[in-house]
Amino acid sequence: MEFSSKFIENAVNEISNLPGIGKKSALSLVLFLLKQPESQSLNLANAISQMRLKVNFCKKCHNISDSDICEICANPRRDESIICVVEDIRDVMAIEKTSSFNGLYHVLGGKISPVDGIGPDDLNISSLVEKVKNNKISEVIFALGTTMEGDTTNFYIYRQGSDYNITTSTIARGISVGDDLEYADEITLGRSITDRIPFEKSLKG
Amino acid sequence: MEFSSKFIENAVNEISNLPGIGKKSALSLVLFLLKQPESQSLNLANAISQMRLKVNFCKKCHNISDSDICEICANPRRDESIICVVEDIRDVMAIEKTSSFNGLYHVLGGKISPVDGIGPDDLNISSLVEKVKNNKISEVIFALGTTMEGDTTNFYIYRQGSDYNITTSTIARGISVGDDLEYADEITLGRSITDRIPFEKSLKG
Repeated sequence: MEFSSKFIENAVNEISNLPGIGKKSALSLVLFLLKQPESQSLNLANAISQMRLKVNFCKKCHNISDSDICEICANPRRDESIICVVEDIRDVMAIEKTSSFNGLYHVLGGKISPVDGIGPDDLNISSLVEKVKNNKISEVIFALGTTMEGDTTNFYIYRQGSDYNITTSTIARGISVGDDLEYADEITLGRSITDRIPFEKSLKG
Repeated sequence: MEFSSKFIENAVNEISNLPGIGKKSALSLVLFLLKQPESQSLNLANAISQMRLKVNFCKKCHNISDSDICEICANPRRDESIICVVEDIRDVMAIEKTSSFNGLYHVLGGKISPVDGIGPDDLNISSLVEKVKNNKISEVIFALGTTMEGDTTNFYIYRQGSDYNITTSTIARGISVGDDLEYADEITLGRSITDRIPFEKSLKG
């Protein structure tokens, strides 16, 4: 594309560097911003640079936080002995929303993926193993997505911690609440049968 | 959504103010930027604010430009007597790409759309009528999209300029080059028949 202004060209190029946004969409966004008050573009630009410069990661769980220790880790009412291992902040938000978990999190920042060149050293795994070594933890819950990469990551961490006496678990896979069996895929349905739970327990849920 | 950092929250809110980007996509973009080098976010933020603050509009045709008069209007080889009326910079870029037009443009900045609260006064129509009044123009080509709003805008401008002795034309509607007739919609095919052109003329194309 040939632009009549290098400022437009520059903005379109930078915006189209974002995943899922092509040059045409980027130009639409630029034209939209030009029609809006100047303050909207300035606020947007400011929010992006502030976010990148000022955001902190919790020193304990690597969750995104404004302080050195995130609100969850700093909360004395939470059970420090249970750690839920997740991929990123979105998973923390999703689990927090359920109000079903009272332990702490450990945010890996990704999954082991040789295809994408992501190895164990690129993730926050060593600090998790460190926590396990210090014997303060009774259970590690794996809550990564069920993909090849998720399973690989789970297994790698499991092996790293196998010398220490801790319980490991993984979140249950099964039919979604409210779903019909006929629409479920075979693997999920199969897992939901092999991983069946005592009926009395399901009544408590 | 509840965020663990107000910087993240702020960035997500600002990004999701853009059309077509919801809170979830905005959060994905933020997490993507956090994984990239700091410079990428700063360049993006800078490009957006520079674009909004420094971009100029051509005083003659209202096209986006870095100077007061855009390159097209400043080009002495272009025919000043023919004006092509378009909606925005994208249309200028599209027509320029064809190399089929040697006149000047007039960028309206939108189309008359009562539903969206856009009236003639919100568009660059008065300056176009001014140009017509000054008698320097021999032909006005309407190149707006064929929608209700496009047709309304064309007709409004046509009426405004009807007291002056100029030719008006509209870009041809018809079957795309390379398209089969059976896949064309009825209205386009109908227009292509009523607006048929002498065969000899089509050979020159």
